[in-house]
Amino acid sequence: MKLNCDMGESYGAWVMGNDAAVMPCIDMASIACGFHASDPVTMQQTVAMARKHGVSIGAHPGYPDLLGFGRRKFDCTTEELRAWLAYQIGALQGICRQQRTYVDYVKPHGALYNTMMRDMDVLRTVMLAVKEAAPGSALVVMAIPSRCVIEGMAEDIGIELMYEAFSDRAYDDAGYLVDRKVEGAVHGSADAIIRQVQQIVENGTVTTLSGKTLAVKADTLCIHGDGPHATAVASALHHWRKKDKL
Amino acid sequence: MKLNCDMGESYGAWVMGNDAAVMPCIDMASIACGFHASDPVTMQQTVAMARKHGVSIGAHPGYPDLLGFGRRKFDCTTEELRAWLAYQIGALQGICRQQRTYVDYVKPHGALYNTMMRDMDVLRTVMLAVKEAAPGSALVVMAIPSRCVIEGMAEDIGIELMYEAFSDRAYDDAGYLVDRKVEGAVHGSADAIIRQVQQIVENGTVTTLSGKTLAVKADTLCIHGDGPHATAVASALHHWRKKDKL
Amino acid sequence: MKLNCDMGESYGAWVMGNDAAVMPCIDMASIACGFHASDPVTMQQTVAMARKHGVSIGAHPGYPDLLGFGRRKFDCTTEELRAWLAYQIGALQGICRQQRTYVDYVKPHGALYNTMMRDMDVLRTVMLAVKEAAPGSALVVMAIPSRCVIEGMAEDIGIELMYEAFSDRAYDDAGYLVDRKVEGAVHGSADAIIRQVQQIVENGTVTTLSGKTLAVKADTLCIHGDGPHATAVASALHHWRKKDKL
Amino acid sequence: MKLNCDMGESYGAWVMGNDAAVMPCIDMASIACGFHASDPVTMQQTVAMARKHGVSIGAHPGYPDLLGFGRRKFDCTTEELRAWLAYQIGALQGICRQQRTYVDYVKPHGALYNTMMRDMDVLRTVMLAVKEAAPGSALVVMAIPSRCVIEGMAEDIGIELMYEAFSDRAYDDAGYLVDRKVEGAVHGSADAIIRQVQQIVENGTVTTLSGKTLAVKADTLCIHGDGPHATAVASALHHWRKKDKL
Repeated sequence: MKLNCDMGESYGAWVMGNDAAVMPCIDMASIACGFHASDPVTMQQTVAMARKHGVSIGAHPGYPDLLGFGRRKFDCTTEELRAWLAYQIGALQGICRQQRTYVDYVKPHGALYNTMMRDMDVLRTVMLAVKEAAPGSALVVMAIPSRCVIEGMAEDIGIELMYEAFSDRAYDDAGYLVDRKVEGAVHGSADAIIRQVQQIVENGTVTTLSGKTLAVKADTLCIHGDGPHATAVASALHHWRKKDKL
Repeated sequence: MKLNCDMGESYGAWVMGNDAAVMPCIDMASIACGFHASDPVTMQQTVAMARKHGVSIGAHPGYPDLLGFGRRKFDCTTEELRAWLAYQIGALQGICRQQRTYVDYVKPHGALYNTMMRDMDVLRTVMLAVKEAAPGSALVVMAIPSRCVIEGMAEDIGIELMYEAFSDRAYDDAGYLVDRKVEGAVHGSADAIIRQVQQIVENGTVTTLSGKTLAVKADTLCIHGDGPHATAVASALHHWRKKDKL
Repeated sequence: MKLNCDMGESYGAWVMGNDAAVMPCIDMASIACGFHASDPVTMQQTVAMARKHGVSIGAHPGYPDLLGFGRRKFDCTTEELRAWLAYQIGALQGICRQQRTYVDYVKPHGALYNTMMRDMDVLRTVMLAVKEAAPGSALVVMAIPSRCVIEGMAEDIGIELMYEAFSDRAYDDAGYLVDRKVEGAVHGSADAIIRQVQQIVENGTVTTLSGKTLAVKADTLCIHGDGPHATAVASALHHWRKKDKL
Repeated sequence: MKLNCDMGESYGAWVMGNDAAVMPCIDMASIACGFHASDPVTMQQTVAMARKHGVSIGAHPGYPDLLGFGRRKFDCTTEELRAWLAYQIGALQGICRQQRTYVDYVKPHGALYNTMMRDMDVLRTVMLAVKEAAPGSALVVMAIPSRCVIEGMAEDIGIELMYEAFSDRAYDDAGYLVDRKVEGAVHGSADAIIRQVQQIVENGTVTTLSGKTLAVKADTLCIHGDGPHATAVASALHHWRKKDKL
């Protein structure tokens, strides 16, 4: 089970997350591309840090909404979304090429991620954009229970998928993330986060907000680098890994 | 002598230039990359138009100053400039890859162009960024009289240069562009523009603002697509070309 | 019947509308405040022009979406909307105060205007924001047929309303504007625009897109300054006015 | 001696400074206005916090450079600067009016502050803009030794000045701030900061970076809310004050 984390989310003078502490503990760094967070210098420094630690680099494109951090639902056309994705993926590739490395995968951010998991037209646009702008790259999607539509579409388009589970977010009974506005949507302690990870890794399940047990089969596990528990969680998982438990 | 023109300088609902009328008349389209002008959809449409007319595609990166249209002097570090260039060039490459084409050359915009022609440290940063982010691409520089420093640097770094003359801008006696704030800096009629082109093409010279005659040896000639005379000039040059005069 | 027009929608180097030609023909200038269009210099110049022609100045606030020109539906909280309105109205007041004039009314722009006409919670937030940030100013709302909810709310909050009809936009059968994405939403000729104005002024009705006749009782008529017919329409209406037909 | 502090410098999801801890300890809150930092909701919350603690509210306008946090030298015309100031001051006034309070003073930020202290044309533009957009408000300027030009200008224009000393920045021998890029420009410990404050308050002097002693006569003392020592410094000064030492 690979650990992925949103990285490079600082902007100019504003720092977000503790990337230097988290980078050594993860396998995949999903780097923001300047639309919802990050700027070219931050991207450059984050790519350098990922290279140093042998961490795989992913593009983490979002809606063009710095003020809303890409978490706001955003009304856009297929043409816009296709262009926004190619632009952001290409920008990170430009930064990577400068350091003789490359974009390995794409994971959409925030509201775009949630929208593509619920609206199959949006997902198709995302898949096509990844296929066109970053041929050979995998797309990270949420490890929801019913996958046949998604898998058929990916096969049809010819794109590789990686299924992702979340360490610090509550699940609803359909296997989607609970909206951030709902109480309990984000786990409030390192313990709760580590417990959810343990359950995903050992049992292949999560306990939903309502108390149900749901099967979750994932290729990669998302941790966050900007919460108050980021370092504790990253260290705990890193320790596990050394014992081959992850 | 190849004709190049700044293209794709619209932004969202704001239109600049008459790209559709000019594109069929030129050889090289220098496409803005979203920092001083353009947006991903505009870039996508401009790349599609360039492909349709067999026009070579160049990245036209600028300072991150939409409000100042990249014409404002901008204080930045070497690290910032290097990252800003890789980001913009990469973004256009992402848009190009989506349409199975590529960035052929790089021509910096506005204040960045003027700064790199006068500050050899900035020029070195630009050359390195082009070499790293768009290996194999040429860099367009101004066809100033004294070129040995520039040529030595390009050879040293291993980058191809294209020298550029201007159709609609007045020259000072050192062979640089007269500042836009100075009266007479931009030629006010289609006739004046065509006369300067004729002189560059036939005699290899320009008449400076003070009346001197200066040798100008260029690979490409810059016309503009957003002035009141854009269409007249583009048509006239296109007509010439058919008669093998260009 | 007062004529109002969206003004000051240029941004930096990008020009939109022909404000100089339209300003002498109108009574109320709704000036963009920098979120969906305009910038401080444009606002300053537009306020100066309005003062010169004795035209009343309105704040024309929109969603913070320059790329989408404020026409995109925008997901936001009550707290955000309230702050965004106070900021924009205040900014224009600052520019006005510099020229010893003031903001006379507020007319929300684009998607915000459409949303407030359909969502009474949003309308309440707008009314409160206008009342708090620009006490004494009127709020321009659309002259829809059923007004009792709106009027009750305005009375309750203590804010003056101005009802507005549109010259160049098609109406649906409920008396709202047809969505811009629908064919026929924007009238395509100066004749069609002038005909709709004539019908509103002389008969107090509009013909909807489906052919129905609808009563429209308005205090002010919106014309646009950025369409291809802007100058023709503005002149025609100006001429009418001289003959006391408007 | 009044304590002032830059406040409201968060932006969207990015937090800067510990405003809640610092606010109870200061007299004057210089609130960023959205150009170099802050956003309308942050401004609203900061104004509310200032009101709660009876802290005077100042506009803290900067250059339109979010990416550079207003610390980058910015090339602009007098017309631009005048409009940028009126816009930002007005925007904060709009937010204040919503909470039945007002802007009490203006203190330019970062590069704009440094530029106005060295370029008297810029200072004149700032004074005029404050006079026009916020009549009755004081302008905070640096407590440099030679003040006759500044004082003459302020008297001429009819604007009140407040002279400011800095707690955490090194001085050069002419009494200006040492450039942030220079080693030692920002004091690295709470002790060094408190020592400088003590010297300013008790002796009316500072020790410059080169070791000279310089007279500094100030009305207000600037502390910062975003450094690692912010809370320690604010508490220490608050404690002093209680003992009537400040």
